[in-house]
Amino acid sequence: MNCTIISVGTEILFGQIVNTNTVYLSQELQNLGFNVLYHSTVGDNPYRLEKMIRESIEDADLIITTGGLGPTQDDLTKETIAKAMGEKLIRHQESYDRLEAFFSKINREMTSNNIKQADMPKNGIALTNDFGTAPGVYIEKNKKIVIALPGPPREMKPMFENYVLPLLKEKSQHVIHSRILRFFGIGESSLESKLEDLVSNQTDPTLATYAKEGEVTLRITSKRETLNEAEKAVNDMIEQVKPILDYYIYSTTNKELNEVVVEKLIEKNMHVSVAESCTGGMLASRFVDVAGVSKVFNRGFVTYSNEAKKDILNVQPQTLDQFGAVSEETAIEMVNGLYSKTNDDVCIAITGIAGPHGGTEEKPVGLVYIAFKIKGETICKSYDFGSFNRQSIRNRVVLTALGVLNKKLNEM
Amino acid sequence: MNCTIISVGTEILFGQIVNTNTVYLSQELQNLGFNVLYHSTVGDNPYRLEKMIRESIEDADLIITTGGLGPTQDDLTKETIAKAMGEKLIRHQESYDRLEAFFSKINREMTSNNIKQADMPKNGIALTNDFGTAPGVYIEKNKKIVIALPGPPREMKPMFENYVLPLLKEKSQHVIHSRILRFFGIGESSLESKLEDLVSNQTDPTLATYAKEGEVTLRITSKRETLNEAEKAVNDMIEQVKPILDYYIYSTTNKELNEVVVEKLIEKNMHVSVAESCTGGMLASRFVDVAGVSKVFNRGFVTYSNEAKKDILNVQPQTLDQFGAVSEETAIEMVNGLYSKTNDDVCIAITGIAGPHGGTEEKPVGLVYIAFKIKGETICKSYDFGSFNRQSIRNRVVLTALGVLNKKLNEM
Repeated sequence: MNCTIISVGTEILFGQIVNTNTVYLSQELQNLGFNVLYHSTVGDNPYRLEKMIRESIEDADLIITTGGLGPTQDDLTKETIAKAMGEKLIRHQESYDRLEAFFSKINREMTSNNIKQADMPKNGIALTNDFGTAPGVYIEKNKKIVIALPGPPREMKPMFENYVLPLLKEKSQHVIHSRILRFFGIGESSLESKLEDLVSNQTDPTLATYAKEGEVTLRITSKRETLNEAEKAVNDMIEQVKPILDYYIYSTTNKELNEVVVEKLIEKNMHVSVAESCTGGMLASRFVDVAGVSKVFNRGFVTYSNEAKKDILNVQPQTLDQFGAVSEETAIEMVNGLYSKTNDDVCIAITGIAGPHGGTEEKPVGLVYIAFKIKGETICKSYDFGSFNRQSIRNRVVLTALGVLNKKLNEM
Repeated sequence: MNCTIISVGTEILFGQIVNTNTVYLSQELQNLGFNVLYHSTVGDNPYRLEKMIRESIEDADLIITTGGLGPTQDDLTKETIAKAMGEKLIRHQESYDRLEAFFSKINREMTSNNIKQADMPKNGIALTNDFGTAPGVYIEKNKKIVIALPGPPREMKPMFENYVLPLLKEKSQHVIHSRILRFFGIGESSLESKLEDLVSNQTDPTLATYAKEGEVTLRITSKRETLNEAEKAVNDMIEQVKPILDYYIYSTTNKELNEVVVEKLIEKNMHVSVAESCTGGMLASRFVDVAGVSKVFNRGFVTYSNEAKKDILNVQPQTLDQFGAVSEETAIEMVNGLYSKTNDDVCIAITGIAGPHGGTEEKPVGLVYIAFKIKGETICKSYDFGSFNRQSIRNRVVLTALGVLNKKLNEM
């Protein structure tokens, strides 16, 4: 079934609120195996709303609107839908009684504006609003379905779940199943060109890439008649993807890189400490993001100043003088100092220039050294994140530290 | 000028991401005095995108698309716009050179997929992407303007601000001026009700609130014939807002709380150190977010484990035994231990239960102690963030620490 979601409300067009209703409804429709073709937003303007409903009904079998069911004069969604569908509005006694009871309960007068909320298209089904005054509407006519839901998410979601979902489930002929794979160390376009042969030869499952800062995700989706079939199709595709991108995959269950790393550390009972200069506590914080990390995360030092590097990590003054705070030598002394303090299985030290100032020709902004001491072995590598800004450089350094550690843990 | 914003991306129709681009663009267009008629979202489907562009161009004078400028096969926005506008795509040498330089810098191969990103409609203006590989496009033809921007907000926003806004300002018949005030410690609805009298009595400047996690911003906008008039109207309004909300304002120039605090520390030449348990380096990292913080930020300790609290901060074993790691007593010993190590003017220690596990009836998830030692004076307060999740609790703790410090620095 092809669907369009129409959000009604001038406050959305003004950018005053973030539209999360469409996110929720899209996911729900997706789960039913329906195709969402369009999202549209229109203000509290009956002319443009009617035009949009008429246009949407050409392509879509199901239209869901949110918003514009309130008592005020600019709430005209129901009236406009009735007009577009050639339906008369009549008083719906049950909704009227509910409204009356509601207002008597809160000791407020029911105005004529409120009374209009009890009007319903003649062939519509009233959808009970358990968390507000505006009932919703479900109309099915000439094989097209139009559903009007209230705008506030706390009213809309329970109405959808309790009263709309059971009606729509009867219409669903498919099951959709998808899984998300996550990758580090490869760009979106390289990932896609590696998968080109796989993608061009088939229509189900579908493969969709999505790039986040420094990471790429791949969603593999299958739409079949039963859940078993869809799951099998997705899992088979994952088995085909794996050998091609094995080196870059860090999760086949949509877990974040820090979760994956912490799980492996817990599994191997390996403890970790970090010493950070330019990332300033961000790597430690990324570890502590993961609930249960206390089993393996010991401590972190933010040694932003040279004094701190000397005092806490025993970095030698002459190393700082001769090679500078951002150098392989300093990074290695930092990680060694950290290890001699903590004796942890994994010690990580970071030093770099996050910018925007402090870069030189020899040591430009974005130059970063990450040193590891893992089970006694010391490794230090330099990275160039010079094309990014301060925040992005620091983010990518943290991701890189986690990505390298993840690889090392895989090899153990 | 009537506008339509079209978001391109199957991931939006799938409900995988929240569309914040339309919020940003709607506000910006609003500020130019333009009318936003519609928001529309379409998947990576050239047929439906072309239909949408053709339909939108009937009503709108300006169409802005976001997304679909990437290197992959399903990124077809530029091609589709060119088709709908009757334009040929040709190689844009400057964009090609930028791409080539970018890939050589990050030492990655430039694939044929990437090269197509340098193609531009013949009569289009290429919009430089300072934070990614996809340039944008500006086409003006038959009195209609179509602008294609990249999807990732961190690329889209600077491109809009630096390259699109100057072009659109020429089309605006009004001057719009706005300033953003930032607040901490007050909710959006309380802020709005405090301003009710001020808001209901006037139409220009307009006041729009926007809530972020733990913070509220207020945008004051005036649309006048000259910049002078608009600036005066906005500044006059700020003078009216100030006495009403003085206690909560931390910036009248849209600066983040961490920037404001670091500026004050630099101004007063006061040095700061932090010791963090549940926030795990997040507060230190928020300080280090600010470029130039090295003048005042000395060091940070992530003392997540009890061992670390004892070793590094000299917290007494009997304090941990008797009162627990999350207690006023421990927080105060942490901050005293930190101070005796660093002697810094400002020492901050945090201990709390971020959850989701580890809470008890007596000490539930969300209980947090923040201890300060500022110029010798020790203060410790407990907070209850129990209605939020782990990440949100930790974020709010960091904001609260910065908010309290900001107040203290104001008093000095």
